[in-house]
Amino acid sequence: MTRFFVSPEELTPEFLVLTGENAQHAKVLRLKNGEEVLVCDGQGKECLCTISDVSPGQVSLVVKKRLESETEARVRASIYMAFSKGDKLEHVIQKATELGAYEIVAFPSARCVSRPDDKSLKKKLERWQKIAASAAEQSGRGRIPEVLVVGSYREALSRAAQADKGILFYENERATTLRMALEAGEYQTISLLTGPEGGLEEKEVAQAMEAGLQVCTLGRRILRCETAPLCALSAVMYASGEF
Amino acid sequence: MTRFFVSPEELTPEFLVLTGENAQHAKVLRLKNGEEVLVCDGQGKECLCTISDVSPGQVSLVVKKRLESETEARVRASIYMAFSKGDKLEHVIQKATELGAYEIVAFPSARCVSRPDDKSLKKKLERWQKIAASAAEQSGRGRIPEVLVVGSYREALSRAAQADKGILFYENERATTLRMALEAGEYQTISLLTGPEGGLEEKEVAQAMEAGLQVCTLGRRILRCETAPLCALSAVMYASGEF
Repeated sequence: MTRFFVSPEELTPEFLVLTGENAQHAKVLRLKNGEEVLVCDGQGKECLCTISDVSPGQVSLVVKKRLESETEARVRASIYMAFSKGDKLEHVIQKATELGAYEIVAFPSARCVSRPDDKSLKKKLERWQKIAASAAEQSGRGRIPEVLVVGSYREALSRAAQADKGILFYENERATTLRMALEAGEYQTISLLTGPEGGLEEKEVAQAMEAGLQVCTLGRRILRCETAPLCALSAVMYASGEF
Repeated sequence: MTRFFVSPEELTPEFLVLTGENAQHAKVLRLKNGEEVLVCDGQGKECLCTISDVSPGQVSLVVKKRLESETEARVRASIYMAFSKGDKLEHVIQKATELGAYEIVAFPSARCVSRPDDKSLKKKLERWQKIAASAAEQSGRGRIPEVLVVGSYREALSRAAQADKGILFYENERATTLRMALEAGEYQTISLLTGPEGGLEEKEVAQAMEAGLQVCTLGRRILRCETAPLCALSAVMYASGEF
């Protein structure tokens, strides 16, 4: 079923109106009176609606049923990814959204080659949020993950450490596996932190441990910086019983 | 440590010579006499070598130690991916190689929009094999996964069914999770089959069951055709104790 995202205040109890990009999208899909669509507030609430009128630039809907989204993951997984070159962050935002991430947090680290300046950052954040919204729509999610940027590595660490489990993946870690970390006690929220192309510095790994994160391996093969967070997220979703 | 792949017959017991692209690569990396490198036969055997001479187009090595690769996954996972649009197959070949796939098999299915003709297929296969080789080198693997194409959906099914576990992922499956399939008995080899952009037809899913494959869900979110195989492979690697 086609899925539209509106702001929470637009999700009114009986009648809804789609405008702007949503109305345009409905036109492209050639939706007609009587057809059913899902309208979501991007925060887990949904309405099953019937189209009552299609006008240029405006689609009117009658609410049939209010629902809680059933496609959100039970565990809230936050992806912390260091700034990286090219469109890798965009790739991870799209895929992590499909895989069920709760939020995606970008941060700077010592070996980051690319780090957007404040001016371009605002534009990038808008673009990143759009990618998350579009992936949420396509994958049938009830919530659009927020995309955030934190100003320093330290800030990323202290934010990540607030989750029930905070995990940093390091290619030189051999002993502690993700499984060990996940099986040591219950969790509702989890942070998964990975480094940039050149990896994290030893000093940064030590800082993370001081901040309360656990350092884990993702196996004996070296994963690219855009592969590691998605591998870890897939494993967490599997381990927490999503599939 | 830098890693070079040579053919099995080139992996001689005492002295080795790198030529062609390998010699060029060594030049780019400015490797010098006395430095150590790993030379692999792409099938799990490796030699720790010391550089004894760097000449134009040729690098001579002395073998210090013969090793069995320690970076190959314990479970042999075969990725069966339907032909898809653009560079999605290339993306999956690269990432699946990093994640430890044993082989990647491309196949046609009813809703495949894109299917290369025989003429372009030979070129594509060469290119795909190169992508696998390069990803194997970068991720530190001891084996280059083979990239294969089978001519029909039926052929893909019967080949996939030969593994200890053969699993097809279908977005309309709700009851059987990957976890149920993996926890029902030991396995050394596993096939993971996913459909094209438009998904598999119901008829095709029924055919797969007849062929002996198990139909599983990857969760309540709809994954893109290039995300599903990598998500499944990550989960299998996690479940089989790789990390």
